[in-house]
Amino acid sequence: MTEKSKILKNPIEHIDISSFDSRPIIESMQKMSFSSRDLARSSDIFNKMLLDDKCSIILTLAGSTSAAGCMKIYADMIKYNMVDAIVATGASIVDMDFFEAMGFKHYQGDQYADDKKLRSLYIDRIYDTYIDEEDLQKCDHAIFEIANSLENRPYSSREFIYEMGKWLYEGNAKKKESLVQLAYENNIPIFCPAFTDSSAGFGLVKHQVENPENYLTIDSIADFKELTDVKIKAGTTGLFMIGGGVPKNFVQDTVICAEILGKEVDMHKYAIQITVADSRDGACSSSTLKEASSWGKVDVVYEQMLYAEATSVLPLIVSDAYHRGHWKKRKHNNYSKLFK
Amino acid sequence: MTEKSKILKNPIEHIDISSFDSRPIIESMQKMSFSSRDLARSSDIFNKMLLDDKCSIILTLAGSTSAAGCMKIYADMIKYNMVDAIVATGASIVDMDFFEAMGFKHYQGDQYADDKKLRSLYIDRIYDTYIDEEDLQKCDHAIFEIANSLENRPYSSREFIYEMGKWLYEGNAKKKESLVQLAYENNIPIFCPAFTDSSAGFGLVKHQVENPENYLTIDSIADFKELTDVKIKAGTTGLFMIGGGVPKNFVQDTVICAEILGKEVDMHKYAIQITVADSRDGACSSSTLKEASSWGKVDVVYEQMLYAEATSVLPLIVSDAYHRGHWKKRKHNNYSKLFK
Amino acid sequence: MTEKSKILKNPIEHIDISSFDSRPIIESMQKMSFSSRDLARSSDIFNKMLLDDKCSIILTLAGSTSAAGCMKIYADMIKYNMVDAIVATGASIVDMDFFEAMGFKHYQGDQYADDKKLRSLYIDRIYDTYIDEEDLQKCDHAIFEIANSLENRPYSSREFIYEMGKWLYEGNAKKKESLVQLAYENNIPIFCPAFTDSSAGFGLVKHQVENPENYLTIDSIADFKELTDVKIKAGTTGLFMIGGGVPKNFVQDTVICAEILGKEVDMHKYAIQITVADSRDGACSSSTLKEASSWGKVDVVYEQMLYAEATSVLPLIVSDAYHRGHWKKRKHNNYSKLFK
Amino acid sequence: MTEKSKILKNPIEHIDISSFDSRPIIESMQKMSFSSRDLARSSDIFNKMLLDDKCSIILTLAGSTSAAGCMKIYADMIKYNMVDAIVATGASIVDMDFFEAMGFKHYQGDQYADDKKLRSLYIDRIYDTYIDEEDLQKCDHAIFEIANSLENRPYSSREFIYEMGKWLYEGNAKKKESLVQLAYENNIPIFCPAFTDSSAGFGLVKHQVENPENYLTIDSIADFKELTDVKIKAGTTGLFMIGGGVPKNFVQDTVICAEILGKEVDMHKYAIQITVADSRDGACSSSTLKEASSWGKVDVVYEQMLYAEATSVLPLIVSDAYHRGHWKKRKHNNYSKLFK
Repeated sequence: MTEKSKILKNPIEHIDISSFDSRPIIESMQKMSFSSRDLARSSDIFNKMLLDDKCSIILTLAGSTSAAGCMKIYADMIKYNMVDAIVATGASIVDMDFFEAMGFKHYQGDQYADDKKLRSLYIDRIYDTYIDEEDLQKCDHAIFEIANSLENRPYSSREFIYEMGKWLYEGNAKKKESLVQLAYENNIPIFCPAFTDSSAGFGLVKHQVENPENYLTIDSIADFKELTDVKIKAGTTGLFMIGGGVPKNFVQDTVICAEILGKEVDMHKYAIQITVADSRDGACSSSTLKEASSWGKVDVVYEQMLYAEATSVLPLIVSDAYHRGHWKKRKHNNYSKLFK
Repeated sequence: MTEKSKILKNPIEHIDISSFDSRPIIESMQKMSFSSRDLARSSDIFNKMLLDDKCSIILTLAGSTSAAGCMKIYADMIKYNMVDAIVATGASIVDMDFFEAMGFKHYQGDQYADDKKLRSLYIDRIYDTYIDEEDLQKCDHAIFEIANSLENRPYSSREFIYEMGKWLYEGNAKKKESLVQLAYENNIPIFCPAFTDSSAGFGLVKHQVENPENYLTIDSIADFKELTDVKIKAGTTGLFMIGGGVPKNFVQDTVICAEILGKEVDMHKYAIQITVADSRDGACSSSTLKEASSWGKVDVVYEQMLYAEATSVLPLIVSDAYHRGHWKKRKHNNYSKLFK
Repeated sequence: MTEKSKILKNPIEHIDISSFDSRPIIESMQKMSFSSRDLARSSDIFNKMLLDDKCSIILTLAGSTSAAGCMKIYADMIKYNMVDAIVATGASIVDMDFFEAMGFKHYQGDQYADDKKLRSLYIDRIYDTYIDEEDLQKCDHAIFEIANSLENRPYSSREFIYEMGKWLYEGNAKKKESLVQLAYENNIPIFCPAFTDSSAGFGLVKHQVENPENYLTIDSIADFKELTDVKIKAGTTGLFMIGGGVPKNFVQDTVICAEILGKEVDMHKYAIQITVADSRDGACSSSTLKEASSWGKVDVVYEQMLYAEATSVLPLIVSDAYHRGHWKKRKHNNYSKLFK
Repeated sequence: MTEKSKILKNPIEHIDISSFDSRPIIESMQKMSFSSRDLARSSDIFNKMLLDDKCSIILTLAGSTSAAGCMKIYADMIKYNMVDAIVATGASIVDMDFFEAMGFKHYQGDQYADDKKLRSLYIDRIYDTYIDEEDLQKCDHAIFEIANSLENRPYSSREFIYEMGKWLYEGNAKKKESLVQLAYENNIPIFCPAFTDSSAGFGLVKHQVENPENYLTIDSIADFKELTDVKIKAGTTGLFMIGGGVPKNFVQDTVICAEILGKEVDMHKYAIQITVADSRDGACSSSTLKEASSWGKVDVVYEQMLYAEATSVLPLIVSDAYHRGHWKKRKHNNYSKLFK
């Protein structure tokens, strides 16, 4: 057993929200105060979104909760028809989900580790979680190969991620039921507005450099246009936001973008955000949903900020929704078909 | 229905950790990362304390979680023999627990409320929770009456709180199973190192002012001496800390105090702390348990900081411990009997 | 040079607010937003307190900023008549200020240090600052000796700290112009509502244990009564709060205490608080000053929460006030004389 | 005077780091602890970057400090040759800097404002700062016009921002010395890896929708390739990061990207980051620079995280560097010329 394999010995196992029933906890928390009540209220708003038969649900992902054990929660939200579109950081989709679909793992680590030693062993650290850098380079390489196989033209990130799902679906997946593959199969579009800011970026730059005459591009304008198309088509929308970052801002801005294109659309009717961010620096990640309402982006009737680290509270919210079962009656929106 | 009673219409109901079983959630979280793993590890350390038949457990309380729905958790920790001594802020013991033992309630409120209007209605606000100021003055008055009934001499806060428990036990309690009364009945000493910094303070100052020739005093040196006596008697100890503040520092200092009195005692062997505090101001509330080990106060083998707002995670930890049942075999330490 | 002296080689030097002029910075920040404007507004409110000839100023200290280089700021606030009473944690007064008055030092350290090694060398750590534990025990011992020299009766913490100031004044000080000594000389009362939760506690417990028939007590009720007397006498008051904790709550409660004693007093008219605390746990440390107004404690016209670590912003505020010079015309309130 | 103009009456004035000299404050803070010492150490590392004649300095901007009064600081860093490349959020560059270059203003506001009322008046809120939504739409429109004037091909964000600088330079600027224009004039490339996630996005989507046969695209792969070219050319680099987000991750990843392209480059040698982010969610914004070293991105010899809201500390750092004057001897790197 090498030193490296001793350090990478405890793989992250992703929590299964169907394996326990959080409903009695959430119900008790409705009668409490502080974060427990915010948690219960977030659950309540998510259940309202699922019950509202006009409402399309958009999930946004920022931060590394997929690496930290929440990956199956997001995949299950597709499996159980709790989500209609996804806006994410590139890392969540490529470095984490697609990476594990290729058969690789994340590992439990230590936030106090000696980073120089990790570096010497080619182990990357995310807070208390480890990644084998050699595995990650294989992931970069898969992106490179997929890019090489596609025709020379501008793609939105959504189109490229669709191709990644297809690649997995066509026999390259080592792990079943990844988010990327389930989204492909269920016509759920995934957008990464800063797609190259991830492992994908390495593969794509290499693709351009090695094919100087014949390469694809990622058109970030197309992403915004397409996500706005989804918003226009959807009408009533609810946002389920994990962290903030570009995904949060991007999806909120679709309301304004639709206006500028001359389409009258409603503000996002429901919105919940789980974050540890601090609102005092004026960054969008941490800005309250009340603030977003000044911009005409989010309505304030059904909104809740839940200040918590998501791994500790998200499993309770989604388990509650799973067991209440409102998802069973939801229609499939198949928004990926808008772009075919 | 008055405007005030409209605002004070939803009383806080305290969560019952026996009404749901968090074990499968905690077990899943052991395989994850970030705060979920910290939560699972906190549970694990608490279970280790309960299993260690030499270990006495000291609970410390700071912040207002008792008002926010966790009051029954702390009482149940006495009922199910999960705790041997308590160190708390005066507010937790007097304004919250003793207050509800007198039949009063806390109410769900709104952190964005108009504080001027609340003031005009004699409603006090703690973040998103309300208190009827008129009820609180009755609580002050009960302390005044208890003080008037006692003999003229210095008391430790422990002695005075013992008298409060007796007063409830002797027929004055309107609510059963308050922490103060259960502690009295089960010989669990409760210490409030800053006792007068609470509703008790108002009653006690009035007592001294109205009995200028014949009043009791609260000797804060006696508190420290007595808590050190508990530490010396206990030997092996584990700390379960909700928030930081004076209670955290006070209980940690008993190790040093014993040394200064010439007694060799072990550092606290186990320690968990749930807090939202930020460690960057050098305040004790937020200082890590690793830092405490530089002072010789806390051992670092079984320690965990859990950065979370306690109402959202504490119910999971104590429900897990309740259902695992290690408490069933614990001996009763009856530390109050040390002082008889 | 021993290993210990190598580690304790850089003593903290306390910043001198007269050595630079922050006025142009504060003036520029008035035109900005976010924390810079909160900082400028805090300065403005402090200047208003100093200009208001009816206003008595109460400084509260929690956290370890005295150890981290702000000790001279607080002493200078007495020297330049910017403060009329002080409410502090025991650590700020005894372990830090009195400790340095005895000639000992704090040292620059490292928050990533190996705490086990520090423990083996008898070095205590506060975040990134070190203390020689052997020096600290000499400080405990001085308290023990002072206590032994006093008569057997209950003391308020204010009375005991007055005796500490006298002890320094009478030739025992190794460093001039400590806060404790300046307060003694200038009739500024200092209150520590949790006095024994500090190095003083060790000395005082030893005093009681070694003099079982003839010992003094610290009556925490007397503290609250006396601070309320200051509030009643002062009328108009302004609070300058560094951190939160017991000092913040204690001084705010004097308004209510005066009411209960049948005296009509005004809410604290001005209030600024510098803190890194998070308001979401319902603890007093972090509760907003708006919340305090629901309790009738603090008026909301001139209040500012400044969310920052104090060492980085406090020097700017007090340097600005020093150079504006409104303190030159303030009368001396000599509140210590109330208790003679 | 309309209701709107009453609310938008106090324009933000940007702080001028040459108008005061922070050197004595920084020098004092070197002898302190906690955040003051982190602040002094950040200054020291920035000065080391400026003194190192091999070092290229890359500034990253996330959050809204440009709107809050720091806009001139960033422009002055170009003017005084303290920076060689910039990576920013789209909002910092387009909605804030370009917006003010067009003659519009940000205004002081109130974080407790009624957001519904603001919405009805077309006032957008960023924490405690206001923007006239009508002005912002003129900014969107300018982007639309610039896009319409350019040829149909993929652009990197750098190329497009270069065109914005040219547009300002060619007589459209209403305010002198904007960052965008100074960068154009001084050959400082600006990259926005999520460019469409800003006011630019609205103009660019409109451009594509209204020119369905003949539109430009923004190729986000090109951004990553070009920034990596800068890193390869620069060799030794120092990072000055305000906030985290995509800009932080993007610039760090250039080290890995160069490796993947077969170029051996050094890790970033110097790095400072000012942030209020909390590291416990595993998001890149808050991840420590030590963590980045496990990925081989940032060296750990000269790195400093400064946990503070930037508006309160950044002016001190840059004023110190301005007055020390090491910038006077720095060579101009003119990295924009790499792409001509």
